[in-house]
Amino acid sequence: MTKIEHIGIAVKDLESANKVYAALLGKPHYKVESVESEGVDTSFFQCGESKIELLAATNPESPIAKFIEKRGEGIHHIAFAVDDIEAEIDRLKKEGFRVLNETPKQGADNKIIAFLHPKSSNGVLVELCQERN
Amino acid sequence: MTKIEHIGIAVKDLESANKVYAALLGKPHYKVESVESEGVDTSFFQCGESKIELLAATNPESPIAKFIEKRGEGIHHIAFAVDDIEAEIDRLKKEGFRVLNETPKQGADNKIIAFLHPKSSNGVLVELCQERN
Repeated sequence: MTKIEHIGIAVKDLESANKVYAALLGKPHYKVESVESEGVDTSFFQCGESKIELLAATNPESPIAKFIEKRGEGIHHIAFAVDDIEAEIDRLKKEGFRVLNETPKQGADNKIIAFLHPKSSNGVLVELCQERN
Repeated sequence: MTKIEHIGIAVKDLESANKVYAALLGKPHYKVESVESEGVDTSFFQCGESKIELLAATNPESPIAKFIEKRGEGIHHIAFAVDDIEAEIDRLKKEGFRVLNETPKQGADNKIIAFLHPKSSNGVLVELCQERN
């Protein structure tokens, strides 16, 4: 894990949340992106070497819709940057973490990603995140 | 906001969580610290320019004990580094954020801190964090 790549925040309405986080962080989001496979629209704010990623559901079956239904808006996951996602998945499995995506999948922002189940990391949904070549 | 200073994670047992996060991050915590006024024991892991702060309650009235009782273990807050916390508090109040500590208070890790109410930031408890001189 080389850095916190981003913090994912589940929001109901991306447009109004963009205004809130632009006011909070003192600068606007620098891009928006839809991830159809996850049923989310996302927007990104840079903060130092990390990003804030706002996530809004595009349909009621989206994991973000279900998260908000259960817990309300709030922090959804932490993503750590890794240099070699497959090596990290192997290492973390051996350490006893429950890896949700044994084969990494396509994520937003030109990344390949894998999630760890929150039960093996004290209730925190952890994303591993490798820049695509 | 110059960077994500740390992510605070509420855990039940600091010793076992330290082992989990050392395995996850690939290195041990670099310090522990008690903040009596908040009723918490904390431990810190470096990750890039940011830190992971584990928080365990030392008494049942601690905000961390109440958080875990209500929501279970998990991400408790995001702390952003600021250069001038009083100026940021003024700025954010004018932007409509609900500031919980109009006068900054002493936090862990040689910081002065102030929290924003999660209702004004899409369910996210935000901490402002300035290094003490």
